[in-house]
Amino acid sequence: MKILVIHGPNLQLLGAREPELYGRASLEEINSSLGEIAQREKVTIEVFQSNHEGEIVDAIGRALGLVDGILINPAAYTHTSVALRDAILSVKIPTVEVHLSNIYAREEFRHTSLIAPVAVGQVSGFGPRSYCLGLEALIYLLRDRLHARH
Amino acid sequence: MKILVIHGPNLQLLGAREPELYGRASLEEINSSLGEIAQREKVTIEVFQSNHEGEIVDAIGRALGLVDGILINPAAYTHTSVALRDAILSVKIPTVEVHLSNIYAREEFRHTSLIAPVAVGQVSGFGPRSYCLGLEALIYLLRDRLHARH
Amino acid sequence: MKILVIHGPNLQLLGAREPELYGRASLEEINSSLGEIAQREKVTIEVFQSNHEGEIVDAIGRALGLVDGILINPAAYTHTSVALRDAILSVKIPTVEVHLSNIYAREEFRHTSLIAPVAVGQVSGFGPRSYCLGLEALIYLLRDRLHARH
Amino acid sequence: MKILVIHGPNLQLLGAREPELYGRASLEEINSSLGEIAQREKVTIEVFQSNHEGEIVDAIGRALGLVDGILINPAAYTHTSVALRDAILSVKIPTVEVHLSNIYAREEFRHTSLIAPVAVGQVSGFGPRSYCLGLEALIYLLRDRLHARH
Amino acid sequence: MKILVIHGPNLQLLGAREPELYGRASLEEINSSLGEIAQREKVTIEVFQSNHEGEIVDAIGRALGLVDGILINPAAYTHTSVALRDAILSVKIPTVEVHLSNIYAREEFRHTSLIAPVAVGQVSGFGPRSYCLGLEALIYLLRDRLHARH
Amino acid sequence: MKILVIHGPNLQLLGAREPELYGRASLEEINSSLGEIAQREKVTIEVFQSNHEGEIVDAIGRALGLVDGILINPAAYTHTSVALRDAILSVKIPTVEVHLSNIYAREEFRHTSLIAPVAVGQVSGFGPRSYCLGLEALIYLLRDRLHARH
Amino acid sequence: MKILVIHGPNLQLLGAREPELYGRASLEEINSSLGEIAQREKVTIEVFQSNHEGEIVDAIGRALGLVDGILINPAAYTHTSVALRDAILSVKIPTVEVHLSNIYAREEFRHTSLIAPVAVGQVSGFGPRSYCLGLEALIYLLRDRLHARH
Amino acid sequence: MKILVIHGPNLQLLGAREPELYGRASLEEINSSLGEIAQREKVTIEVFQSNHEGEIVDAIGRALGLVDGILINPAAYTHTSVALRDAILSVKIPTVEVHLSNIYAREEFRHTSLIAPVAVGQVSGFGPRSYCLGLEALIYLLRDRLHARH
Amino acid sequence: MKILVIHGPNLQLLGAREPELYGRASLEEINSSLGEIAQREKVTIEVFQSNHEGEIVDAIGRALGLVDGILINPAAYTHTSVALRDAILSVKIPTVEVHLSNIYAREEFRHTSLIAPVAVGQVSGFGPRSYCLGLEALIYLLRDRLHARH
Amino acid sequence: MKILVIHGPNLQLLGAREPELYGRASLEEINSSLGEIAQREKVTIEVFQSNHEGEIVDAIGRALGLVDGILINPAAYTHTSVALRDAILSVKIPTVEVHLSNIYAREEFRHTSLIAPVAVGQVSGFGPRSYCLGLEALIYLLRDRLHARH
Amino acid sequence: MKILVIHGPNLQLLGAREPELYGRASLEEINSSLGEIAQREKVTIEVFQSNHEGEIVDAIGRALGLVDGILINPAAYTHTSVALRDAILSVKIPTVEVHLSNIYAREEFRHTSLIAPVAVGQVSGFGPRSYCLGLEALIYLLRDRLHARH
Amino acid sequence: MKILVIHGPNLQLLGAREPELYGRASLEEINSSLGEIAQREKVTIEVFQSNHEGEIVDAIGRALGLVDGILINPAAYTHTSVALRDAILSVKIPTVEVHLSNIYAREEFRHTSLIAPVAVGQVSGFGPRSYCLGLEALIYLLRDRLHARH
Repeated sequence: MKILVIHGPNLQLLGAREPELYGRASLEEINSSLGEIAQREKVTIEVFQSNHEGEIVDAIGRALGLVDGILINPAAYTHTSVALRDAILSVKIPTVEVHLSNIYAREEFRHTSLIAPVAVGQVSGFGPRSYCLGLEALIYLLRDRLHARH
Repeated sequence: MKILVIHGPNLQLLGAREPELYGRASLEEINSSLGEIAQREKVTIEVFQSNHEGEIVDAIGRALGLVDGILINPAAYTHTSVALRDAILSVKIPTVEVHLSNIYAREEFRHTSLIAPVAVGQVSGFGPRSYCLGLEALIYLLRDRLHARH
Repeated sequence: MKILVIHGPNLQLLGAREPELYGRASLEEINSSLGEIAQREKVTIEVFQSNHEGEIVDAIGRALGLVDGILINPAAYTHTSVALRDAILSVKIPTVEVHLSNIYAREEFRHTSLIAPVAVGQVSGFGPRSYCLGLEALIYLLRDRLHARH
Repeated sequence: MKILVIHGPNLQLLGAREPELYGRASLEEINSSLGEIAQREKVTIEVFQSNHEGEIVDAIGRALGLVDGILINPAAYTHTSVALRDAILSVKIPTVEVHLSNIYAREEFRHTSLIAPVAVGQVSGFGPRSYCLGLEALIYLLRDRLHARH
Repeated sequence: MKILVIHGPNLQLLGAREPELYGRASLEEINSSLGEIAQREKVTIEVFQSNHEGEIVDAIGRALGLVDGILINPAAYTHTSVALRDAILSVKIPTVEVHLSNIYAREEFRHTSLIAPVAVGQVSGFGPRSYCLGLEALIYLLRDRLHARH
Repeated sequence: MKILVIHGPNLQLLGAREPELYGRASLEEINSSLGEIAQREKVTIEVFQSNHEGEIVDAIGRALGLVDGILINPAAYTHTSVALRDAILSVKIPTVEVHLSNIYAREEFRHTSLIAPVAVGQVSGFGPRSYCLGLEALIYLLRDRLHARH
Repeated sequence: MKILVIHGPNLQLLGAREPELYGRASLEEINSSLGEIAQREKVTIEVFQSNHEGEIVDAIGRALGLVDGILINPAAYTHTSVALRDAILSVKIPTVEVHLSNIYAREEFRHTSLIAPVAVGQVSGFGPRSYCLGLEALIYLLRDRLHARH
Repeated sequence: MKILVIHGPNLQLLGAREPELYGRASLEEINSSLGEIAQREKVTIEVFQSNHEGEIVDAIGRALGLVDGILINPAAYTHTSVALRDAILSVKIPTVEVHLSNIYAREEFRHTSLIAPVAVGQVSGFGPRSYCLGLEALIYLLRDRLHARH
Repeated sequence: MKILVIHGPNLQLLGAREPELYGRASLEEINSSLGEIAQREKVTIEVFQSNHEGEIVDAIGRALGLVDGILINPAAYTHTSVALRDAILSVKIPTVEVHLSNIYAREEFRHTSLIAPVAVGQVSGFGPRSYCLGLEALIYLLRDRLHARH
Repeated sequence: MKILVIHGPNLQLLGAREPELYGRASLEEINSSLGEIAQREKVTIEVFQSNHEGEIVDAIGRALGLVDGILINPAAYTHTSVALRDAILSVKIPTVEVHLSNIYAREEFRHTSLIAPVAVGQVSGFGPRSYCLGLEALIYLLRDRLHARH
Repeated sequence: MKILVIHGPNLQLLGAREPELYGRASLEEINSSLGEIAQREKVTIEVFQSNHEGEIVDAIGRALGLVDGILINPAAYTHTSVALRDAILSVKIPTVEVHLSNIYAREEFRHTSLIAPVAVGQVSGFGPRSYCLGLEALIYLLRDRLHARH
Repeated sequence: MKILVIHGPNLQLLGAREPELYGRASLEEINSSLGEIAQREKVTIEVFQSNHEGEIVDAIGRALGLVDGILINPAAYTHTSVALRDAILSVKIPTVEVHLSNIYAREEFRHTSLIAPVAVGQVSGFGPRSYCLGLEALIYLLRDRLHARH
């Protein structure tokens, strides 16, 4: 079982960036927590960060047939990227959307997600733990579907 | 550590109600899964279901000073209850909002949550597992805050 | 064949309440007219009035498996209750929505019904006779469906 | 007592047109059911179908002083015709609006009726039976008003 | 002269609840201040608090013919309850609406009151004193109307 | 100089129709007043009434090259007819829009005119005199343009 | 019979100001045309121009009991002045609104008039002649009302 | 294979009407180009122009069972005719929508098409050539469907 | 303690103006009632009425450092004056907003107050008594703040 | 004559991606069809696909002075890219917009195109044939303009 | 070269007024900085402050033919004054709009400027320096236009 | 002191692109003017142009700790890029936003800037000089903050 983890724009600055909003953990620390879960659950994860909408769309397109699930924090592209939404729709890979902060307690334009309607589910507001919960949710879900098929 | 679990309107019908949307698990089965997590994590949970907005508001008011965290699936009241929002604001108990289905893939009026801005975080779309992930997220969060105070 | 008749909030005041808008018939007189139709058509009706959204949701939930059709005047909850809509959706019992007054000739916020999209049909504007027409429509409809199944 | 029955645009195709939405009864069958009710209730009905907004407005104008009530399914003109609304306002003949399908369970633009605020009442969602219920409602209403005048 | 005082949802927590927004006075202290005014002005007051929309609607319905005026802080139901609005409309008892905080300096959704159009007047923003000013306004108003009738 | 006078839908009922809103003058009386002005000003007028959007569009199309100005009371089509607007745009004949009643003091949907932006000017609210003022305005305007060309 | 003619803001610049939009006639020329009509019709006119909303409101207030009709080109205040609207409402003097240009063929925010709903009628789009037509309409209207009273 | 070509309101003026927007070709020239394509492609076309919404709806209704495809330039009715949309929905004949001008580069109200959601596809902005491209697209499409059925 | 009382536009007409809406008391009578309260409460009041937005803004600016509280009925400027709002914000003098009529039971545009969010509180709907209640509320409030500072 | 063909985001997946919506043809097959038309019509085409908004903007900028026309399927960027719109505006190269699916029969946010107002015309809903029709339309158009210049 | 500097409402309070938002500089200090720039650049400036919309409109009207450019901080009138916008449009004097604070980081209603579309350009957010930058920009611009004319 | 100058999408075409809107200066000429100011003011500038949202976000992220201020013309991304806004928010480097044209005099969608609320200030409408004024404003601002810290 292989899972693609995608970190959207500005997440390379995590820890340095607005710690009162996003927490003090760096992206490396988050990736390392995800790695531990992956190892424990015996799944492979591939981690990818980009500030480029196009590169994220490329990555999702390349994942077709190679990846079983996607864990994505679309960050700013949550609210503006139809291309990202179409990419997820096109490859039909089960996708879980996570957010570090509670986007519903922030500016109005952050309350609408173009990704949510094409994702399986969302986890938001728990800081780095949103990723861990999201990964676990995704793994359980993929296993359920696997079992359902047998 | 004591956690109040609130199931909103129509959730007493779970399993019987639109299983293609909400899954086949009954509320009892969900409560029993939550009980196992509570036992494992050595926290006490109190479970409460009501179709009455007023009873849920009563319950949150009574929880003041007695409960450390609230796990709530506000169901239909997510979109209409300012009273529920005010109750959570009033008691200032950390609250996690969960939904069985992906509310962002349903009717437009279900995309707005009056509860989300006053909750710590949300988990939605994973069926009964949304509750389990939400409970774990809440326990971790309460422990973090406990540690931070010492 | 059993039909649950639900009168929403403030309908206990009927006759006393704004007679120029709702007519002079009391709720008892309406119920008695409905009883005559029921007797003539050989169906059982159970009548229920409540000002509590939660009690109406409870009643619909309890009706699951016991009732063949619902005749409802949701009154004020027509415009605000997602819980009531979800209850009807959950039990999947054919429901007819009636209104005493022509809600489209009143304030703007009364033009939108949260119940209409989940009801089979609506009758509005004919005063107490809206209930009678609605009950007849519901009985015919249930008989058609019964025949279609054989 | 004379009643003008008006069938709006595309209703000449009834039965042939989207039977899963509008049922299999043809316009002739509906007219024949209405004729039976009229005979039973000893009222005269005049039936009129047109796809032309202008012809319907002409017909309503000509009805002034000759007709006691109007039963209308304005179909598509429900949502777009101010001319039709003004015609009903002008002649001040009591008018009942009927719809075959539940227009509130269809596209957003079908939820607004320009006719509803000037009609006495509405019946919708019961297929051909919407017409029958509407005709009965109209006859009762005209008799009530007749009695009230004496 | 008898006046019904209604405290809406979450007001049982007053004093404990967000004192920086609602002040430190408890509901008992407010009721006691109202009692002093009532005694001084020689009117009877009956005080009622509920978190249940339905119970408040029940109370207003029961007041018909027994109560001369209503003083209400509808709290959260200000913005969501058509049932409460209809109850006030139905009993036609002069009603004064009060708010502890300045609702116009808070979230957008608190700027709209469903109750205001059916109330005689409003007092808001003066903390517990909003109640006292509202009660005095209501008593003067009822006396004026009494005088006008003689 | 030839002027086409167009009366829109339901204006055949003038005098009979809502006299408190539109006055007691019949369409014949208005036409006769217009005839007197025409005779006095030595212009020819052609009068046309129709309830059919298409017939009005036909008439405007036929006027191309034969008529110097159009005086129109588009009535209900004011608010709904893009076809009428396009007809006026197509033939490029100077057009004056008149209304009997003050459309800005009526329902919201009557405040928007699709015709106004393609008309030279508007006269509204003066009953039958709106027509007379509009015709005089149109004649003066056509003479000005005639003079300007010489 | 006395009529108050009010010219709103920036109209002192007429002729100098955007002649392609407002024509080349100066305010003096317009006033002189109005004077000729007044003399012919044997009414008194008082002319007033101000760029100050407050001065126009003052003038309307002072007119109470002294003036029979108001002819106003509210210019920019058409779209923004509730104070002007309230002044006209308060004095209840019949008011005719005129505009030089066709405001419906200009920017969106010029399509809404706060004055129109409280005016008797409007004349717009005929340049200086809008004033002349408006004055004549007002005089006829006042005479009709005078006759109606006898 | 038979195709019905429908030209909407004001298109009879083509060539004469706003040539800078719609080009200099007359409707006859367009029909003759379409005739050449039809002959070349061995299909029959029937051409129809009307300014009447009702006549276009009639024509579509009559086409049921006799025509294989519809090529329509709904012109002004694009933006206002639910009746036309319902007619196309009712007969279920594959329909291609064409426009001479680029409607998206014109007034806001022309950006919404009521016809587009029920058409197979659209061609717009290429002047008379929009018709030719649309006819070719329709013929290819009908042939594809024919082949698919065999 | 000095309080500035501001009466906004058209209030000089009080008593004369729409008595059915604003009551029969003149501004002088209101000022005299306010004077009695001031004398009883041993505060100085300065009364000011203007129809000019600019004069009211001037007056508030001059009050800086000289006045302890402002009692204002902004009348029409309630809904349109950002300048008035900014003046109150700038001088930071506690301000109470009063209205004679219940603005929430009138036209939609009167439901929004630009002043409310910068005022301490509002009293509306009690006719001239709104001023008296507002003045009392302001005096109590200023005394509370004075006490709090000691 | 040289034409730049641009395929927007996710079109590299064509055939694999949602075939029920976009058809089974791969991008290579579409390009090969376009190549055949180009050869037949003796024009050069250059084909370009990218998921990167920036790369498409780069390509259009580079085309300035080198390319005679642009055929573009902006896909998801249709609805979100002002940069793409500005690029087309900047280089002033005639551009035809094509879509495989009928975007007007899909989600609301797909009904608005930022590109349409700056394109010459659109072809949508015909699957891969949209490209072929669009290329032919573009070639004819460029030839017309070439002829018009001679 | 002569430049009119206009300070809008409440700016007389500058320095005293909300210094955390508008800085500590008084209007005199700003005027003195502007005077220095004017002297250095050999232009004449005339400075004007008013809280009265009408006085500002008067001043702009009087400037016609006497002033080469206008530097304006419209303050609150930015968002509400069509009269000010029309004055600038009427005199056609190049106008630069400045704001002390970043109006886009404040309340929603401050994001819309009625003045911006008729100004040459804007400078905002730099405190008193916004004026200096705006004056320099205006001088350069007027010189460019002067040169361009020779 | 080091300043990063960012030119957004399509600005590489400056001079060639719509000179009537953006002027005839090329990007090189603008950069060279900025260089002169930098040299005069003894600051270092680094210039960067990209059509890629992602590259601009990358550049801002890399600037963290290395750059004292950002001067940005976000061009098309002004209106669509939440990622760019988040980048500026993340690095907390003072940012000045400039525009060549007056964006408020163009299409509606250009009136909203996602960048403005997170920038210090804006300069727009002065062509290339917007950049020079913006750079000077930024340098002064950074010096002020530097002084304030000592």
